[in-house]
Amino acid sequence: MPHIDLGNDQPGIRSLFYYRPETAQPMSELAEILLRGPSALERWERELIATHVSGLNECRFCTTTHAAFTAAQLPADLDLDVIRADLAAAPISDKLKALLDIAAAVQRDGRQVTPELVAAARTAGATDLEIHDTVLIAAAFCMYNRYVDGLATTMPDDLGLLAERAKVLVAEGYLPTVAAARAHQAQAARA
Amino acid sequence: MPHIDLGNDQPGIRSLFYYRPETAQPMSELAEILLRGPSALERWERELIATHVSGLNECRFCTTTHAAFTAAQLPADLDLDVIRADLAAAPISDKLKALLDIAAAVQRDGRQVTPELVAAARTAGATDLEIHDTVLIAAAFCMYNRYVDGLATTMPDDLGLLAERAKVLVAEGYLPTVAAARAHQAQAARA
Repeated sequence: MPHIDLGNDQPGIRSLFYYRPETAQPMSELAEILLRGPSALERWERELIATHVSGLNECRFCTTTHAAFTAAQLPADLDLDVIRADLAAAPISDKLKALLDIAAAVQRDGRQVTPELVAAARTAGATDLEIHDTVLIAAAFCMYNRYVDGLATTMPDDLGLLAERAKVLVAEGYLPTVAAARAHQAQAARA
Repeated sequence: MPHIDLGNDQPGIRSLFYYRPETAQPMSELAEILLRGPSALERWERELIATHVSGLNECRFCTTTHAAFTAAQLPADLDLDVIRADLAAAPISDKLKALLDIAAAVQRDGRQVTPELVAAARTAGATDLEIHDTVLIAAAFCMYNRYVDGLATTMPDDLGLLAERAKVLVAEGYLPTVAAARAHQAQAARA
């Protein structure tokens, strides 16, 4: 049960966005830019970084949802369970592996990102912007994960609906939730 | 020296905002809402929460700057050094102490926020919204701190200028940096 009365029965971060649409707006815009905006990194690669960090933070809601978002955008010849079971041996690029290493360092502490980790990413072909965005995706999920767990939000009742939710996310992105949150707030104010 | 070529000589998070104004915008809007927007918590109380979390993350840039922003908005009878030296004994409200305890739990891991910590804050007079905003301020600084340190940004050359910078922040808030970052980006594109 959430630590505070959120006034809605949405799961995870959606329940917090419905409670406080003002902060939901910039938080969702940040996710939209980082995970779906113009980038040399594929959307599934960025979602995989988000999933990996959420897994390291043991945030069940974010790990489950972003794994679904990754899977929904994965090339047909890749299997997310295989990738996540052994990242080092996974059939993904050396660049993505090096960026996942940087993300894992950020999850522990920003100062854990060493010149060696950055050099390894660069050797594998990563640009400065890709390194930057990887650090910020990892840092941002250290926020989202703590927000979701710090207020003890709930898991979705039916995880079977997650694949449907992922299809909507892939089609529409992170911003429609904010519109839904503001509509809920307006309705609650009228009630 | 920063891990990537940021193309500017600004310190700390400003150098990252100048490098990537697109993400600077929502990150600054989030700080503006949480630290300066309408709230039952005073601005100095919210800046103190940010400073405390940054100190626990040992992020020198964020701790130093937000300590200056706290000090610049502190009631005349309070001394930030005295408060930070011993939070438990500090002449601040029991509510703020309980919220600082919640923030410290979030810094470690969202799941460390226990029903007991939340009940203690409520007993001391904290509302649900204050508890929510405290969790999100703490979570957000786990992002800002990792962003600043994960890319190895620099400290300001002259810490003596920080009090002046704090005066500007108190007067104008967190958004003018984004305008400056966009102007820098436009100028760099023309050069």
